[in-house]
Amino acid sequence: MNRQVTLAARPTGFPQESDFALVESAAPEPGPGEVLVRAHYLSVDPYQRGRMSEARSYAKPVELGEVMTAQAVGEVVESNDARFVVGDHVVGQLGWQEYAVARGGTLRQVPDGIPLQWSLHVLGTNGLTAYFGLFDVGRPQPGDMVVVSAAAGAVGQVVGQLAKIAGCSAVGIAGGPDKVRELTETFGYDAGVDYKTDDFGATLKKACPDGVDVYFDNVGGDVSSAVFGRLNVGARIAVCGQISQYNLERPEPTFHPGLLIVYRARMQGFLVTDYAPRFGEAVPRLARWLVEGTIRHTEDVVEGIENAPAAFLRMLKGENRGKQLVKV
Amino acid sequence: MNRQVTLAARPTGFPQESDFALVESAAPEPGPGEVLVRAHYLSVDPYQRGRMSEARSYAKPVELGEVMTAQAVGEVVESNDARFVVGDHVVGQLGWQEYAVARGGTLRQVPDGIPLQWSLHVLGTNGLTAYFGLFDVGRPQPGDMVVVSAAAGAVGQVVGQLAKIAGCSAVGIAGGPDKVRELTETFGYDAGVDYKTDDFGATLKKACPDGVDVYFDNVGGDVSSAVFGRLNVGARIAVCGQISQYNLERPEPTFHPGLLIVYRARMQGFLVTDYAPRFGEAVPRLARWLVEGTIRHTEDVVEGIENAPAAFLRMLKGENRGKQLVKV
Repeated sequence: MNRQVTLAARPTGFPQESDFALVESAAPEPGPGEVLVRAHYLSVDPYQRGRMSEARSYAKPVELGEVMTAQAVGEVVESNDARFVVGDHVVGQLGWQEYAVARGGTLRQVPDGIPLQWSLHVLGTNGLTAYFGLFDVGRPQPGDMVVVSAAAGAVGQVVGQLAKIAGCSAVGIAGGPDKVRELTETFGYDAGVDYKTDDFGATLKKACPDGVDVYFDNVGGDVSSAVFGRLNVGARIAVCGQISQYNLERPEPTFHPGLLIVYRARMQGFLVTDYAPRFGEAVPRLARWLVEGTIRHTEDVVEGIENAPAAFLRMLKGENRGKQLVKV
Repeated sequence: MNRQVTLAARPTGFPQESDFALVESAAPEPGPGEVLVRAHYLSVDPYQRGRMSEARSYAKPVELGEVMTAQAVGEVVESNDARFVVGDHVVGQLGWQEYAVARGGTLRQVPDGIPLQWSLHVLGTNGLTAYFGLFDVGRPQPGDMVVVSAAAGAVGQVVGQLAKIAGCSAVGIAGGPDKVRELTETFGYDAGVDYKTDDFGATLKKACPDGVDVYFDNVGGDVSSAVFGRLNVGARIAVCGQISQYNLERPEPTFHPGLLIVYRARMQGFLVTDYAPRFGEAVPRLARWLVEGTIRHTEDVVEGIENAPAAFLRMLKGENRGKQLVKV
């Protein structure tokens, strides 16, 4: 038998557990060229909120009754693709389900000798997002001030450490004293700023007195507005996510393009999938930094596929601590 | 005697003629290394609205009682700089005044044999803004669709023609049937769209059915919002001006940065002055295209320095036709 989490209803505003359903069905059979994978870990990510909505975006919405789209890592239990044998570990867009069938070409082999779930985090989409978003979009120069929102999150915790590797100063923005402490104690940020305090603006200014050269934005909204007030001439804004906006029924515009003239600044959106041809450049570097301990990371693991929706809602509220995973 | 237009009051909202004053004073004397210039033409440009305000921007505000900052072209009548002799024609940031003293290093020699006022338009700041904004910020590829707002204005009329030279399609947005007709009949645009009509959105869609690759924005606000709905993946937005916002007492944010993720798009502000080291690359090309007739242009000339404020207000209302100049 296969257990799956499907989309039961399209939320307006903040989603609820009842927007998902746990369904049981027969385990699928792989066809020609296909591989059957048993999932070990499922990924939980903000972009999934976008897939629950019908609004036009870069990817099609999940249909009602369809399995929630998600990355997962697991082991091959049956293979009709000569590139994979039973027992291989693979990562792919396998959805929130225990067993998934996928074409071999959509799967990426996971290297032996490292924990499986790392391929959903620093060695997977999150780490690659941090790597290409910071280095290719943000283009930091040594000595630059890099500011990161949702800095304790799965992507943000990597961005700060990459910025330090690149010779920059790094300031992280997160919500609440525990996360903010983690920014400097665990993730190597030079300073952490709590956006949930009344003196957020003043603390941010104190943390980057000479302004901001690169802003890696996962959040948008008021958090970003505060950073925009500190931009330096020539600043680069890498727009990775806008989690503050995802659950608004009618998001309000938050930005004046004219600001980009004042600072001759560049604001650029990106998707990690566009960099797929260059993943081979980034993964070995990230793996080395991870194994050496240059990059540290935290995981927030819940057990049982039935808890995936609750874990997703916690993450949207910012209550997770580090990369949100579901152990199947 | 020297006649000057000075800033008499800081406007809130739309400026009035009473925000300026016409004053007479003794003609200035050039000091060591300085040059005395008698102005022939004064330039009238949207950026001057920004200089009337105390809001933080890329340049200092004009002080109350100070001569309005402006480009002007004229002839040298006295020179204490060996690089200039009496009778030379020069362009510079000389202000709205009949006689101006400037350090020689801030002046640019105007080539002989072309009308003086061209150096305030296609061969001056406007043409250079079009050139670097389109080619360096917009980075059009042959076959791209380039959309330009305020397309019949001093900058926009050049951008469309440069886009055609670069092998692109060009759609211009302007207000009113006369300007829109001019876009295709004079400035080489493939289509003109009138933002003042009820079916602006539908007309825009029809004019660029395959979406927008480069948006050269002089306007912002609702005009830009319509264009943002038509972006292609990988679109580039060159933010040159936001004239729709300059006279609002409290500009409303108009943009969702999340849109840049959906389209993996880049939005970049620029100032032509940052490209000064490369003006020598652009001016001879623009001059050749102008003399050949590849680039056509229109001028809206009013006579008399006393009419500079009225010409400025007309331009802010979009009532000018082409480059707004004052003949002294």
